[in-house]
Amino acid sequence: MASNSSGSDSSDRQRIAQQRLSVIAGHLQRPVEGNSGILAAECKAQGDKLDVSSEGRTVPRRRQEIMKWNGWGYSDSKFLYNKKGQAEFTGKRYRLSGMIIPGLREWMESTFGANLQHKTPAAPILNSSAVQPPTLNEAFLKELKSTGIPFSHDAEDRVFRSHGHCLHEIFALREGKIGRVPDLVVWPNCHNDVVKIVELACKHNVCLMPYGGGTSVSSALECPPEETRSIVSLDTSQMNRILWIDEKNLTAHVEAGIVGQDLERLLNESGYCTGHEPDSMEFSSLGGWVATRASGMKKNIYGNIEDLVVHIKMVTPQGVIEKSCQGPRMSTGPDVHHFIMGSEGTLGVVTEVTMKIRPMPEYQKYGSVVFPNFEMGVACLREVARQRCAPASIRLMDNEQFKFGHALKPQVSSIFTSFLDGLKKFYITKFKGFDPNRLCVATLLFEGDREKVLQHEKQVYDIAAKFGGLAAGEDNGQRGYMLTFVIAYLRDLGMDYYVIGESFETSVPWDRVLDICRNVKARIVRECKDKGVQFPPLSTCRVTQTYDAGACVYFYFAFNYRGLSDPVHVYEQVEHAAREEILANGGSLSHHHGVGKLRKEWMRETISSVGMGMLKSVKDYVDPNNIFGNRNLL
Amino acid sequence: MASNSSGSDSSDRQRIAQQRLSVIAGHLQRPVEGNSGILAAECKAQGDKLDVSSEGRTVPRRRQEIMKWNGWGYSDSKFLYNKKGQAEFTGKRYRLSGMIIPGLREWMESTFGANLQHKTPAAPILNSSAVQPPTLNEAFLKELKSTGIPFSHDAEDRVFRSHGHCLHEIFALREGKIGRVPDLVVWPNCHNDVVKIVELACKHNVCLMPYGGGTSVSSALECPPEETRSIVSLDTSQMNRILWIDEKNLTAHVEAGIVGQDLERLLNESGYCTGHEPDSMEFSSLGGWVATRASGMKKNIYGNIEDLVVHIKMVTPQGVIEKSCQGPRMSTGPDVHHFIMGSEGTLGVVTEVTMKIRPMPEYQKYGSVVFPNFEMGVACLREVARQRCAPASIRLMDNEQFKFGHALKPQVSSIFTSFLDGLKKFYITKFKGFDPNRLCVATLLFEGDREKVLQHEKQVYDIAAKFGGLAAGEDNGQRGYMLTFVIAYLRDLGMDYYVIGESFETSVPWDRVLDICRNVKARIVRECKDKGVQFPPLSTCRVTQTYDAGACVYFYFAFNYRGLSDPVHVYEQVEHAAREEILANGGSLSHHHGVGKLRKEWMRETISSVGMGMLKSVKDYVDPNNIFGNRNLL
Repeated sequence: MASNSSGSDSSDRQRIAQQRLSVIAGHLQRPVEGNSGILAAECKAQGDKLDVSSEGRTVPRRRQEIMKWNGWGYSDSKFLYNKKGQAEFTGKRYRLSGMIIPGLREWMESTFGANLQHKTPAAPILNSSAVQPPTLNEAFLKELKSTGIPFSHDAEDRVFRSHGHCLHEIFALREGKIGRVPDLVVWPNCHNDVVKIVELACKHNVCLMPYGGGTSVSSALECPPEETRSIVSLDTSQMNRILWIDEKNLTAHVEAGIVGQDLERLLNESGYCTGHEPDSMEFSSLGGWVATRASGMKKNIYGNIEDLVVHIKMVTPQGVIEKSCQGPRMSTGPDVHHFIMGSEGTLGVVTEVTMKIRPMPEYQKYGSVVFPNFEMGVACLREVARQRCAPASIRLMDNEQFKFGHALKPQVSSIFTSFLDGLKKFYITKFKGFDPNRLCVATLLFEGDREKVLQHEKQVYDIAAKFGGLAAGEDNGQRGYMLTFVIAYLRDLGMDYYVIGESFETSVPWDRVLDICRNVKARIVRECKDKGVQFPPLSTCRVTQTYDAGACVYFYFAFNYRGLSDPVHVYEQVEHAAREEILANGGSLSHHHGVGKLRKEWMRETISSVGMGMLKSVKDYVDPNNIFGNRNLL
Repeated sequence: MASNSSGSDSSDRQRIAQQRLSVIAGHLQRPVEGNSGILAAECKAQGDKLDVSSEGRTVPRRRQEIMKWNGWGYSDSKFLYNKKGQAEFTGKRYRLSGMIIPGLREWMESTFGANLQHKTPAAPILNSSAVQPPTLNEAFLKELKSTGIPFSHDAEDRVFRSHGHCLHEIFALREGKIGRVPDLVVWPNCHNDVVKIVELACKHNVCLMPYGGGTSVSSALECPPEETRSIVSLDTSQMNRILWIDEKNLTAHVEAGIVGQDLERLLNESGYCTGHEPDSMEFSSLGGWVATRASGMKKNIYGNIEDLVVHIKMVTPQGVIEKSCQGPRMSTGPDVHHFIMGSEGTLGVVTEVTMKIRPMPEYQKYGSVVFPNFEMGVACLREVARQRCAPASIRLMDNEQFKFGHALKPQVSSIFTSFLDGLKKFYITKFKGFDPNRLCVATLLFEGDREKVLQHEKQVYDIAAKFGGLAAGEDNGQRGYMLTFVIAYLRDLGMDYYVIGESFETSVPWDRVLDICRNVKARIVRECKDKGVQFPPLSTCRVTQTYDAGACVYFYFAFNYRGLSDPVHVYEQVEHAAREEILANGGSLSHHHGVGKLRKEWMRETISSVGMGMLKSVKDYVDPNNIFGNRNLL
């Protein structure tokens, strides 16, 4: 089926191309240009099946060589308590690496009632015998072998790709519990490899699950336990080149397996960036961003994924879908890019994307503002949005997060400062008159032309002042953003000491922001109490994005589960109640994490029955045999 | 079918609402607020079936009372040559109204070889006997009558709604040629009326064609001649209220039949605007904008329709589709709003839309820049886009349009200035050294905070100077924009004198802009010659929008058809060739006019077979009996 329609599509395209060549040949006289403005990367797809991690790419085929199999991020980076009982962050990759974090222990103990004597370490290595032998589709495998595309059915490779980073997934792995995992892992190198894999999967009725960064927090990567066919994890990480940079149109054409940090680093070499910086960017992939409608920290300048993409190519069971034109904006019926974005791996594999790029900013400046209370902070952010003068990033954390941020301060001198002492010092010396249990902090990032940045900064601080906000310096801002990439490692530390937690997010109109923050946090506390959680939970929130018509709100929720017989079940019930509370308060099902399997139950009410029917009709057409059978969304 | 799914949807929603009320009641303690920030319009839908044109609404039910039945716009406004042989614009509605335009005649004569002795006037009134008697579906009509919804099967009402404003449509009307027209016209007053109409149409298998402003230029409103069922034109113009304005979230909830000028005028009364100003805004409707992915002149500030909408409600044969949340941006699968936008009346009727609103700008300033040639002008616009400092509007016209603009200068004193004299004076006194046959003009509009506007203006003029651009004053800018709404009336004048023409548009990457402008204009000239057009055509273009990755280019094409036996056929062949040329040069099928029936043949190559399949699958699900049978798009 796939090849037939590709075939007729292909001869259609040939005919059209011939037509056009004859049209152009007759009269087109372009001046010969020395600098065509297009920098084309060497095409390496055909011959080179080597692991490209040495070529400036982050993700090797065998990810477990550098990444944890049962926790977040790099193996060499983790929080732990050293022999002196101090919190430390290991490794060398991050600003925080190799540093003592003196306040963290106190904070964990007081916030969770955690006790460093009570440890719940993870299973250190994968017990391969806990992994079901693979269900291999021999006919598929035989044809796959003849393509030369690398594959594996090692237990380790399969387990690595059997999960995302939802709490229940990591918790299970730490206990050495392995459920349904892919039977096979394949590593296509380029679009054509993907076409072959999809054709074979359709031919032999194999279940394909695209796997990009593996950072899903919506259970999107969980293998459906009821799936009896062979499950093949289509790992895109080796399909990761920038194919060309077009300096005239400020676009770049990129293979969808590239991860955020590589994309930015490679573009930076030419003086460009996409500016798309999701918190997961070290590991998440371009294809994953497209599939989940990703959002980045600096979307105020660069836009969200739907603003960044100019062209998408996706391989489906029906063939390749792509527009014929790279025009900036069109009216050619419903925009099929929006049938692809958000499809969460249910329709096909995104292989190549043309993205907008920008020159790297000349200048960057961090900042922070302390507000007397959260309400004033929100009102300030709302006014900044109303005046359409938001910096690249502006985020407002509540009082608990302010304190938490303080607890993560690394020790920079030999004088030890306790968490509480440091906190006291902060508000006594600088913010007299602010109630330490109500004050909250906004962190800011400006970037662009230096002169404009300084003007812009003044405008924002002037607005902040109207809402009782006091400038609190660049350092506090910078530290807020620096912590972005290490926060995810903290959950693993928590889980070493009976503390489990998760973040979840929503988008909501401005006039519901305060309600949602207050009601959801209170609901979490109440539900935990009802379900026997012994120590009050951490229930905290942050406004992370502003829009014309509302904001994105992020919640962190964590608790000490000591004494509970089924902690993950308690967690899931509380999270479920929190989402109900979010919806009841006018918040959306998700701002950017997506639906996966975790939030499917609310899809019908979110987009209406007719909307569901539309999505289903597209799925039934594109993938009638449910080859892309991750069971997300619908 | 429609009522069943609405029914279960409705009881679903009730149950969910109950659930939520109990959740909220338990703990929600909102401060009592005096000013809720929501201004709600009185609901008038139920009782008032009066024609609301007296209530500040532009469009009466019987549009022919104020609008031309066979030409553009208001009946009282037209270009004509008076007894002295001078061009005049009649009426009182426009700045140009009641004025002499001394240069126009000379321009028409020299540009087209037109001769005022050779007239081809339109049929002045509709010959009702030329109109087929209506094919009425009696069962449908009977049930319709019991709803109380106004309807008509008068010939005049039916003919009025049988067309948009493509050349071939107006040409035929002027000759008194009437093809397939709707059999019935209905005027729903509100969403619930539309629900009833759609239910009845499904029940009795009647073809529904939504009719908003009637300004389509894609043959979208043409009634399919092969349609044997009764065709009902669902005229949305009386469903035109602003239901509420939400000052806290800066949104407004509006019925989709409202036309642009009413929407802005009504919002202005509260100090707001949407800022959405398509050239058709006097007559085009909110529902039409959504259905066609409309773009507005000031999209650089306010965005295009996809940036403006927060919530859409559409009635389909399967029921009502709408999201449950008004959040600013979500990841809940593919965005169903994008299944609706661009559906061009093939899936249902858009009834209500929540749009973003903005405070009216404090300050507005026009401007203009003269460039030595078009290439420099384009390079300047590209640089303005690169620096992301475009004004509210920036448009670059080519040399022919500069001259044309000059020809439209009204006579403001008793001293008559010939077109050529005025032109000479313009460049001799001001732009010495500029080649009068190569110079071109950009018109600019800035709006916003006064201080920022002046800064912004300086930045743009500084960039223009780098490309040889000289500031040419506010007047030239303002006049350019003032002409926006009268240009469409010119075609009717042309058609009085054997001149026919059309505009068409595309979007294209920056590096193809010059090619597309040169090649398409040349192709038009060549095709006209090949097909026996006696006098060289007007073939001119303008860059009307800038984006990060490209621009919107507008072409005007007109010619004197004297001596041709089938002028419309010649016109269609040339337009077809022009579109082929656009596509061959990397331009899109349309930036904002849409596809309709006029451009269906290129849909498959535009979005690929898989894309077509997706659109078809949605259509087949939503409207399996093709009730919304206008045959657009697919």
